[in-house]
Amino acid sequence: FRVKNSLYNLVNGASGDAKDAVVILEKTPFQEENISDLLKKHTRLKLQMSNDIYSTYHLYPPPQLSEIKTTVVYPATEKHLQKYLRQEVYLIRETGEDYRNITLPFIQSQSFSIQWVYNILEKTAEADRIIHENPDSSNGFVLIPDFKWNQKQLDDLYLIAICHCRGIKSLRDLTAEHLPLLRNILHEGKEAILNRFGVAGSQLRIYLHYQPSYFHLHVHFTALSYDAPGCSVERAHLLSDVIDNLELDPQYYQKRTLTFALRADEALLKKFQEAGKA
Amino acid sequence: FRVKNSLYNLVNGASGDAKDAVVILEKTPFQEENISDLLKKHTRLKLQMSNDIYSTYHLYPPPQLSEIKTTVVYPATEKHLQKYLRQEVYLIRETGEDYRNITLPFIQSQSFSIQWVYNILEKTAEADRIIHENPDSSNGFVLIPDFKWNQKQLDDLYLIAICHCRGIKSLRDLTAEHLPLLRNILHEGKEAILNRFGVAGSQLRIYLHYQPSYFHLHVHFTALSYDAPGCSVERAHLLSDVIDNLELDPQYYQKRTLTFALRADEALLKKFQEAGKA
Repeated sequence: FRVKNSLYNLVNGASGDAKDAVVILEKTPFQEENISDLLKKHTRLKLQMSNDIYSTYHLYPPPQLSEIKTTVVYPATEKHLQKYLRQEVYLIRETGEDYRNITLPFIQSQSFSIQWVYNILEKTAEADRIIHENPDSSNGFVLIPDFKWNQKQLDDLYLIAICHCRGIKSLRDLTAEHLPLLRNILHEGKEAILNRFGVAGSQLRIYLHYQPSYFHLHVHFTALSYDAPGCSVERAHLLSDVIDNLELDPQYYQKRTLTFALRADEALLKKFQEAGKA
Repeated sequence: FRVKNSLYNLVNGASGDAKDAVVILEKTPFQEENISDLLKKHTRLKLQMSNDIYSTYHLYPPPQLSEIKTTVVYPATEKHLQKYLRQEVYLIRETGEDYRNITLPFIQSQSFSIQWVYNILEKTAEADRIIHENPDSSNGFVLIPDFKWNQKQLDDLYLIAICHCRGIKSLRDLTAEHLPLLRNILHEGKEAILNRFGVAGSQLRIYLHYQPSYFHLHVHFTALSYDAPGCSVERAHLLSDVIDNLELDPQYYQKRTLTFALRADEALLKKFQEAGKA
């Protein structure tokens, strides 16, 4: 949240100027060694509700057990303020027609560079990071650790399969002709991760995003026990389900209504609003 | 985490028995009206690091500003304990046939009490918490805040719609005949939340769980910006998609392969393993 200098004054005792500050407060996860203190020491409990074997309480812990991480940016520029302001998010239900009339023209009007994707596929960048490759130009792909994963622990395992074929923008472009590609990604991806990291396919969440963050078909592989960003139901589509849907109906993703969230400042939201669809 | 009765004793002062309890502690989101108190009142600040315009502090808030939501299940059965212990998880792909041969007989062999659900529907518990009710015995439901939500801030808004009709165990039982019920839940649920809490339907994630944690049909309503537990793609099914699927094919959920995760110690996983399906 954004605070004016009065709050910053509190923080450092300065006064008299009118500069903005950003103050970020974060509750930190419980530390296991503090749990028993938390339940015993100077802790006040207030019953909230009770039903059968279930009850809920308010617990008021002593200050030393409820530390809040506080970050201050001072003086803060307008750019800092924008970065930390909370954005509302809105759910969009995009029909096949909405995609063709609103989303597709919008994507085509944008010029997001995906040179970094081509660099990976052409081995001019990150070649040493490739975990597996199927070099077929139609049905092949490159499997590579995601930027967000440091590969130091398996808890947050995160890899990306990027297809060699260019021009498949997203889920919306997939038809039955892509089934061999999708099956290769599913089966070879699992096998490569088992061989390299010892993690079985049954412990992986394998999915596509819609909307994706870049418009070149790619598939996410994350540890099932990892609550990965972007794995929630309004954005993620399990690759196995995608394959089933295309087997059922080759035009499934051209016809189907798809749901996704947009932040208030995203240009695509404005397009949907202008069309009276949001 | 699992605690023995000593901790529960702390909670209610009872003693002498040796029954297990489950105690769940959750830090709740900040409440906007408390922020300025948090920064002013009796709050101790300790500088951690400072670099240019950035600095970080430890802030130790007074107890009344750092409430912890505490949920107690007592006495807890082995099943409750299992539910909350950390475990390896495995992804299952359950075909319609697997459901009939493995999952359904398993559910029927269990006797997990859902008396607390009937208490709500019959108004013998939590009647004052009901936000909305459609009393129709086939197509009606009760909308109630979830246990996990304290209703003090909208960031983690969480309500549950519980249908009046008994015997709909899960998504797997849904057919086109349930469309009126599902549409009522979708439309009246949104409207009631808008009226009571001022949150628009486009800012809600509305979904069913498969597998659910209890076998009486219910629908989750959570704030879209809240990363709610159980909203990931391998468990959540958007109500709008469920309605679309049933409109497309009345038998969709009897035929379709559904994916879900099971923890290593869950009895249902053993059933799938015995059948050579996991």
